Amino acid sequence: MSSAAQPQSVRHVAEHCGASLKGDGSVLVCAIASIASAKPGDLVFAEDEVKLDQALRSHATAVIAGEFAAAAHPSKPTLIARDPKLAFARVAALFGQVESHEGCHESAQIHLSAQIGEHTSIAAGVVIEEYCHIGNGTAIGANSVIGARVIVGQNCRVGPNVTLHSGTELRDRVVVQAGTVLGSTGFGYVRDESGRYQLFPQIGRLVVEDDVEIGANCTIDRGALDATVIRRGVKIDNMVHVGHNVEVGEDVVIAAQTGISGSSRIGNGAVIGGQVGLGDHVEIEAGVILGSGSGVLSHKVVRGKGIVFWGTPARPLRQYLKELATLARLSQKKAK
Amino acid sequence: MSSAAQPQSVRHVAEHCGASLKGDGSVLVCAIASIASAKPGDLVFAEDEVKLDQALRSHATAVIAGEFAAAAHPSKPTLIARDPKLAFARVAALFGQVESHEGCHESAQIHLSAQIGEHTSIAAGVVIEEYCHIGNGTAIGANSVIGARVIVGQNCRVGPNVTLHSGTELRDRVVVQAGTVLGSTGFGYVRDESGRYQLFPQIGRLVVEDDVEIGANCTIDRGALDATVIRRGVKIDNMVHVGHNVEVGEDVVIAAQTGISGSSRIGNGAVIGGQVGLGDHVEIEAGVILGSGSGVLSHKVVRGKGIVFWGTPARPLRQYLKELATLARLSQKKAK
Amino acid sequence: MSSAAQPQSVRHVAEHCGASLKGDGSVLVCAIASIASAKPGDLVFAEDEVKLDQALRSHATAVIAGEFAAAAHPSKPTLIARDPKLAFARVAALFGQVESHEGCHESAQIHLSAQIGEHTSIAAGVVIEEYCHIGNGTAIGANSVIGARVIVGQNCRVGPNVTLHSGTELRDRVVVQAGTVLGSTGFGYVRDESGRYQLFPQIGRLVVEDDVEIGANCTIDRGALDATVIRRGVKIDNMVHVGHNVEVGEDVVIAAQTGISGSSRIGNGAVIGGQVGLGDHVEIEAGVILGSGSGVLSHKVVRGKGIVFWGTPARPLRQYLKELATLARLSQKKAK
Repeated sequence: MSSAAQPQSVRHVAEHCGASLKGDGSVLVCAIASIASAKPGDLVFAEDEVKLDQALRSHATAVIAGEFAAAAHPSKPTLIARDPKLAFARVAALFGQVESHEGCHESAQIHLSAQIGEHTSIAAGVVIEEYCHIGNGTAIGANSVIGARVIVGQNCRVGPNVTLHSGTELRDRVVVQAGTVLGSTGFGYVRDESGRYQLFPQIGRLVVEDDVEIGANCTIDRGALDATVIRRGVKIDNMVHVGHNVEVGEDVVIAAQTGISGSSRIGNGAVIGGQVGLGDHVEIEAGVILGSGSGVLSHKVVRGKGIVFWGTPARPLRQYLKELATLARLSQKKAK
Repeated sequence: MSSAAQPQSVRHVAEHCGASLKGDGSVLVCAIASIASAKPGDLVFAEDEVKLDQALRSHATAVIAGEFAAAAHPSKPTLIARDPKLAFARVAALFGQVESHEGCHESAQIHLSAQIGEHTSIAAGVVIEEYCHIGNGTAIGANSVIGARVIVGQNCRVGPNVTLHSGTELRDRVVVQAGTVLGSTGFGYVRDESGRYQLFPQIGRLVVEDDVEIGANCTIDRGALDATVIRRGVKIDNMVHVGHNVEVGEDVVIAAQTGISGSSRIGNGAVIGGQVGLGDHVEIEAGVILGSGSGVLSHKVVRGKGIVFWGTPARPLRQYLKELATLARLSQKKAK
Repeated sequence: MSSAAQPQSVRHVAEHCGASLKGDGSVLVCAIASIASAKPGDLVFAEDEVKLDQALRSHATAVIAGEFAAAAHPSKPTLIARDPKLAFARVAALFGQVESHEGCHESAQIHLSAQIGEHTSIAAGVVIEEYCHIGNGTAIGANSVIGARVIVGQNCRVGPNVTLHSGTELRDRVVVQAGTVLGSTGFGYVRDESGRYQLFPQIGRLVVEDDVEIGANCTIDRGALDATVIRRGVKIDNMVHVGHNVEVGEDVVIAAQTGISGSSRIGNGAVIGGQVGLGDHVEIEAGVILGSGSGVLSHKVVRGKGIVFWGTPARPLRQYLKELATLARLSQKKAK
């Protein structure tokens, strides 16, 4: 992936990520890599002394390591950072490959009334309907469909085969991976006199704030009458479902295949594991940690910043483990 | 969303939904809205006295409420309905926005042998393969793919980026949301002499009857040799998986991320929560209610109209709760 | 589906699948079918004596059955195979319909630098980016998107609306069903000084080896720095999620809606049920069987070829059942 990147001096890289430098700062690197795959010109990341030793014996040109390396005498230029993983993440941006090409592919179908910003990339087969607004620096992947009146902010990255329905607004620097559907019709029905289901109106909005990143093949429904809101900095893994009228607080993390039913609220900084299920009208308070596979029943409130919950219905990890142990013990006793 | 809708008198709206009217019937409304977002010209819905009070103090022009409002002296025209939520759902249709444009976009690729009905809307980038039949009044969203010989009935709404494989038939008024795949190849294998898996033939059909509504990013497999059948009026939420040869009965409701393995049968009117898992060859009898996250093992039968089941293996809610309480009590006792 | 298939003599069919033949070998068949839907010219499959009886009374022209039929005097030509289901699967290939048309649709957008093999089928609306390689005999379904530098081997079948991201390599005879996303960005973040999440580099590869078959609407992430690897012969059902750096061993079977978190390893021949959840860095040893809905916590090892595990945390089936029984008994006792 290094083909497009500019070589950088190790000294420049160290300054970029706030690391101190051991060794020759004039050496050039042009890509990041794993220790196993490193080639000359690559910069690698060593999280402990064993990895540092492997890194120094690899083909890599330079290494980022933690303060444990300060006393060593490394044989390659070494950047020493308080949080080497974070430093490595920041350095990656220096060498990021440019996959999107500025401009609009001739096969894209863009309505005349749509407003397309500068330095945008609209790939082949994209469909942009009437009165859309696409902000400066944003890239839309091939064969994605942007419904009428959708607003996409600046420097967003929308993957291929994505659908953004009418009623959706993405703020700035939002990432939406391939196959994801945003602003879909929520699942709300009323039974009529004959017992058949009639759709309750689903005409609200979906607002996705700055710096939100959403994985592949997710679905987030628009609000029924008001808005579904995904607040600043939320990170969502693949195949997550978010129902109508949900509000997800700032910097919440949600792992793969979790489902959040309608009208639930998740407080800032909560961490939701994979395959978690939240019923409707649930409230998860700020900072709660829900273990993978746990479930919360409709209308329940889960509180306790930093407390880990597990199981269905979700209960504090300590209690959950005690119950597991009790059950194992009792079933063994019976067997004797 | 009110831009395209025709203003209607409150009297006309009341007649449309079978409500009685208090106040000036000549007032015009042109959209529905939530109480919080209502603007002049909007009609809102109040489900109880607290909401009615909020509605009357909002910017809305008129209100739909239940019979609890009959004795009140509302300050705005008020429609009084026995089931105000249902009335509101019916009124919504009066103001529904028209998102699809009649006609066939020039970028759509339609095989010459395909039959396209009247008043259809075929959006940009749609691919319709040979011998398809698209019924009158049906809309196909952008970049969807309709395989050879697929039949789509009248007044269907197929969202963007949908795939309908060969072997699929949609009857009338079927809704399929974005990203959904219908008629995919089922998961059935036979091991050969060397232990490798060979696909068992998956050449059956998928029939989706009238008034079925299917959410976004779902998958429903075609039958192996016979048909997978989704009966009239079934409502399916996002990311639901239905395996080959399954039969889902009339008016069944299935919430998000539920999976139904091959050859299972669900009786009419059953209600299946979110993230439920059914093994293969399961039978869920008519009217059974399966709580979210519950699981049913292969070849099991779950019976009892109106009975709520929970847990894995699914058991009556009462028993499930008793077991949870017993386990909590025993593990506390041990701790002392 | 039989329209395109060449009629074959029953004798030829028997030789193709290694079955012995009873009756007139010169009779012609031209399709396979279920017993219920069989028409004249169809070959059907009978797995036991009841089904054989039904088959002989059906409209089918010939039957494949097991050795239980050897003593019978069937009224139709009958192929007798040791494993009739496997024989039937093999015969199906003789009559397989050809859905893809050789050639490249004029609406496909193929970068000039891409290498397209012979006898390929590139459907309408496909986008193939720079430096891709598409092997001989491979078919790409309509509106799929193949990112820059992706390699697709020979005789692969990629469905419609699929996304193959840069970094992905498919070997030979790989099947990818509609809506699936391969090579997506993994879910790995580092918190910065202000507590916000920064993406850790996700620039590794995804390698999918020979004969792998992947269902619809799945997601498989590329490695962070190294590779995610799906080994030869793996079969994956719909809506399965595989995280970054995972390795899935040869001939592993994974049922629908299962999720495998980052850096986990699954040994050869393991069988993973539906809706299973694996935490990160899990190791499932070769031949383990994980029942549907079971869960394995991060960093755990599950061992035991042929042993069935169930529940969360996953434990041997025998223990799981004993615990269920104990809990049911204790909660009943309490109720008295």
